[in-house]
Amino acid sequence: MTYKVQQKLIDDSNKNKELYLPSVSIDCTVFGFSEGILKVLLIRLKQAKQWGLPGGYLKKEEDLHTAAQRILRDRTGAGEIFLNHFNTYGAPYRSQGFFKDYPDDLWNKQRFISIAYYALIDFSTLTPTPGEYTKSAEWIDLHELPELMMDHGQILEDALIQLRRDLNYKPIGLNLLPPKFTMPELQKLYETLLDKKLNRGNFYRKMMRYGILTKLNETRKGGAHKAPDLYSFNQEVYEKTLKEGLQESW
Amino acid sequence: MTYKVQQKLIDDSNKNKELYLPSVSIDCTVFGFSEGILKVLLIRLKQAKQWGLPGGYLKKEEDLHTAAQRILRDRTGAGEIFLNHFNTYGAPYRSQGFFKDYPDDLWNKQRFISIAYYALIDFSTLTPTPGEYTKSAEWIDLHELPELMMDHGQILEDALIQLRRDLNYKPIGLNLLPPKFTMPELQKLYETLLDKKLNRGNFYRKMMRYGILTKLNETRKGGAHKAPDLYSFNQEVYEKTLKEGLQESW
Repeated sequence: MTYKVQQKLIDDSNKNKELYLPSVSIDCTVFGFSEGILKVLLIRLKQAKQWGLPGGYLKKEEDLHTAAQRILRDRTGAGEIFLNHFNTYGAPYRSQGFFKDYPDDLWNKQRFISIAYYALIDFSTLTPTPGEYTKSAEWIDLHELPELMMDHGQILEDALIQLRRDLNYKPIGLNLLPPKFTMPELQKLYETLLDKKLNRGNFYRKMMRYGILTKLNETRKGGAHKAPDLYSFNQEVYEKTLKEGLQESW
Repeated sequence: MTYKVQQKLIDDSNKNKELYLPSVSIDCTVFGFSEGILKVLLIRLKQAKQWGLPGGYLKKEEDLHTAAQRILRDRTGAGEIFLNHFNTYGAPYRSQGFFKDYPDDLWNKQRFISIAYYALIDFSTLTPTPGEYTKSAEWIDLHELPELMMDHGQILEDALIQLRRDLNYKPIGLNLLPPKFTMPELQKLYETLLDKKLNRGNFYRKMMRYGILTKLNETRKGGAHKAPDLYSFNQEVYEKTLKEGLQESW
């Protein structure tokens, strides 16, 4: 960490105090899927050795969702991404180690309760760009995670649990597939998100029971095997399901 | 609202500023079930006309869960209750109307982001007792809800949606039944929480598939009809399921 970077944080302390609400921060876990690989969007702040989740503060009169979008844009160059709030992190000394070399009156050194969001997008649609306070912003394979700053490792782990849980009642991530897709492609998406193999027959029956798929009168041509059937999403049921949940409930 | 009550809030403003973290509050939605009735624990603050959820502030070095327990105890006399965090409410002017008659420098009048928790208990085990800032604390039938203060109506509605969603992957509320119970008693619990009738055969099959019930070699004696079978929970599977979720997932 250079003196210049540290000094900027100290210089910005009063500006931050004016601009942001005290005690509240926001952290975003953005998962990226493409072609059978699951990644997560991580950054390195200029003053940090370790990687972390894109995070920041809430402006005094700003809505939480607006703030989460802005923070993600400022840290990584992301466009609009639908973010799901899933948990809140408030251990009293969660950021103490991170700011230990800074004066106690540094605005950023106070206790922050972090409101956590997650999202799932196609990582090929976003090339991360570091912002004013970020020296790196990258998609990192979930199987090659570095150790993360503060409690960000825990937040990321919880976000993944929540994503997997949400798969049970929301058609999450289905918009990551092309408009026409095969059942093996859909299964591969689920297997990647869950990081486990699924039984083909069970997967097919469960997915059809949800009623969100339309079987097309077309097959995928060109392979060595029997041409697999193509499916698309029933847009109307899909929209309804996003709101009301998949019909696997009581 | 009497002058005395209003003055106390103003007098406590500096004390609050010393004691609590700015910008962060906590609200608790406690549902109560007993004998086929679902209620919610509501309070009236001394300065309020409307009912609301038990809520309060976070001490400067206090853990969020500890604070939620303390607030619930202070407002309603509740003992230890397991609380689930489910959402966060941060609309910029959510409490503006509530404190409009107070001076702008009142500590309580600042913007608060509220961390929301819900719980489900047996309401016959808790007789609510109003605390220092509460003039009433009562169990109120969900079918007879009054209009609530601020955004508490929305918080309560969301808590109920979350409770119902959680029923799909956690054995929630099953500890509200006696150690030995009949399938109709269990179904009645679910029907009360969901506020709808369920098909007897489907309910039985789904519940048995979860593997958390043990069928006992006993029946409930005494009724006019055929004596119904008794069940108990398989404690080991029940504990595991509370952690890992019911096996209805992918």
